[in-house]
Amino acid sequence: MNPHNQLLTAYKQTAYPLVGHGKRNLHVLKTVLNEMDGDIESDAYGTGAVIENFQKKLADYLGKESAVFFPSGTVAQQIAMRIWCEQKGLNKVAYHPLCHLEIHEEDGLKKLHQIEPVLLADENRLIRLEDVLTMQENIACLLLELPQREIGGELPEYTELEAISAYCRANGIKLHLDGARLFEILPYYQKSAADLCRLFDSVYVSFYKGIGGIAGAILAGEEDFTKEAKVWKRRHGGDLISLYPYIVSADYYFDQRLHSFQQYFEEAKELASLYNQCHAVETRPLVPVSNMFHVRLPKEQLEPVLLSIYEETGVGLTTHLKKVDERLCSFEVSIGDQYAQVPKTALRKAFHMLDEKIREIVFREGKD
Amino acid sequence: MNPHNQLLTAYKQTAYPLVGHGKRNLHVLKTVLNEMDGDIESDAYGTGAVIENFQKKLADYLGKESAVFFPSGTVAQQIAMRIWCEQKGLNKVAYHPLCHLEIHEEDGLKKLHQIEPVLLADENRLIRLEDVLTMQENIACLLLELPQREIGGELPEYTELEAISAYCRANGIKLHLDGARLFEILPYYQKSAADLCRLFDSVYVSFYKGIGGIAGAILAGEEDFTKEAKVWKRRHGGDLISLYPYIVSADYYFDQRLHSFQQYFEEAKELASLYNQCHAVETRPLVPVSNMFHVRLPKEQLEPVLLSIYEETGVGLTTHLKKVDERLCSFEVSIGDQYAQVPKTALRKAFHMLDEKIREIVFREGKD
Repeated sequence: MNPHNQLLTAYKQTAYPLVGHGKRNLHVLKTVLNEMDGDIESDAYGTGAVIENFQKKLADYLGKESAVFFPSGTVAQQIAMRIWCEQKGLNKVAYHPLCHLEIHEEDGLKKLHQIEPVLLADENRLIRLEDVLTMQENIACLLLELPQREIGGELPEYTELEAISAYCRANGIKLHLDGARLFEILPYYQKSAADLCRLFDSVYVSFYKGIGGIAGAILAGEEDFTKEAKVWKRRHGGDLISLYPYIVSADYYFDQRLHSFQQYFEEAKELASLYNQCHAVETRPLVPVSNMFHVRLPKEQLEPVLLSIYEETGVGLTTHLKKVDERLCSFEVSIGDQYAQVPKTALRKAFHMLDEKIREIVFREGKD
Repeated sequence: MNPHNQLLTAYKQTAYPLVGHGKRNLHVLKTVLNEMDGDIESDAYGTGAVIENFQKKLADYLGKESAVFFPSGTVAQQIAMRIWCEQKGLNKVAYHPLCHLEIHEEDGLKKLHQIEPVLLADENRLIRLEDVLTMQENIACLLLELPQREIGGELPEYTELEAISAYCRANGIKLHLDGARLFEILPYYQKSAADLCRLFDSVYVSFYKGIGGIAGAILAGEEDFTKEAKVWKRRHGGDLISLYPYIVSADYYFDQRLHSFQQYFEEAKELASLYNQCHAVETRPLVPVSNMFHVRLPKEQLEPVLLSIYEETGVGLTTHLKKVDERLCSFEVSIGDQYAQVPKTALRKAFHMLDEKIREIVFREGKD
């Protein structure tokens, strides 16, 4: 058996998984539909109350003129880039080297839209104002991902965002927000979504991360922008006859979880501190700025250690391990509804075990 | 009120709508989920039992090596065209002037894939073998839509398809089937899906037409082809974390309706004959070859005539009218579960009224 599968299998059987909202099974959708009237009509190719009302609700929430529901963020963001590039007559955008469009979309942006990305900053840090000010290339759009997921979910300060936004506006560069985890960062900034989105010309948010829906995304901006986005949505094959399974669940869990993000943020800081108290373990960021962080720890014999913790304490830490280098590996933590249900005694026991077992390994290795 | 809306509103209130399976409301999905175990796990970016099993089931049904589930036919077919064009190094495909890619996709094929279409035949007839044999351009792929929906759902004879297929194979042209209504034509050909699909290199089928699911499509072909299609699916933003709402409903209604298409076909012929018995009314084709056909009738004062029929007999004929020219309009009929539930007396009464009222109008106009 593949060792990754072994960890995933064991994690799924734990009584107290620390990460996420729960299993991604059919209950997630059944729960929503059980509370809904079956006579509600489907949306039809982007029209109808079910889609139009939700689009209006999210446009208002994000403080934008208009919003369009998409089956995926991949479609939504490529389209945003395409619109801004066509408007400027320049097929060049800038983003982080670990941007979703760069590493998770099989080069759709290049192969479908012939848009060339300029990579700002490096893989280990955020894009800073300095990177934008010193950029050599002329670009149509700058995409910022908040938080920058692949480096653990880091964030620039709000004042730095303001400065970047002001520079872009002054220089005819559109600013796009990859807000896949927008809800997750508002407690840190202590801002409303509208306050944050005001700095951006276009905004994408996702409904299956912190919100915990089935799938789906919203792209928001001015009316002219979303009108064009709807045409591109059809071109991309994203204008389905019915998107309601995603919309009704996005709406349901949006209402249910929107006020829990402050709690997830506090819990993420608590859990990160537990990790950081373990020998040779460090989180990134050291103090989380959202509901997420990465954990880095010694690679050697880690899998059996985790499996023994899951079995003895019932606490599940992670489903996967990712190799960082010869010495270290890492995994991602994002807090959802499940963390609050974990008994503190089990949690303490699990972290006591983690600390002890890693000490043993490091000590043994040191002697060899 | 928009007169089209008036017809749609009135149709929705009729006791005996003649067309389709029923209302596209949340019941369609609730019915499926009520019968399913909530513990069934979601698919995850194209993996997992729920998607893999359905793909295998449809590959077997279509007689192809492999199949990929897509959120929409628009994504699936553009991708099929792209793969065949890249393989041949030639960005040119041929299809009918009223092909879905040409008239319903906002030029996605051209704007996302830079593929140039060659339009075969004209808007009023099918693509024939002769059109293929005399084609001047070199193309990578020929797309055939069976039945050709926009001209009423016509079909070439099977022997002609065989000849086209043989010519394409001999000349290095890939043959793609737009089988949005594939299930609907098998009773006419008296062939299995696999027998028909054997003539084609790639096949797309839809699950929200005759099958009556929520949305979604399958693209099938050889393993190498579907492997590439999965990469393009991700590029297009169609590789959602969860497609299961569409998959489980496609599977459910596939099983439920697959054996009803012979009945729909017989009923379509019966209903077309009722239309053709009315004065100045004609169906296209005259004798249907699937569950669908178009009805052409005098435009003048037709809307009040239909409204009075709906009101007096409870029979709903159509939700929309489309202008053909100054004299004629048309609408589409596709038979689903609802037709069998219409009492024959109500049906006879409705067609008696239609015939009489159109005679009155035509006679009155003749006198003016």
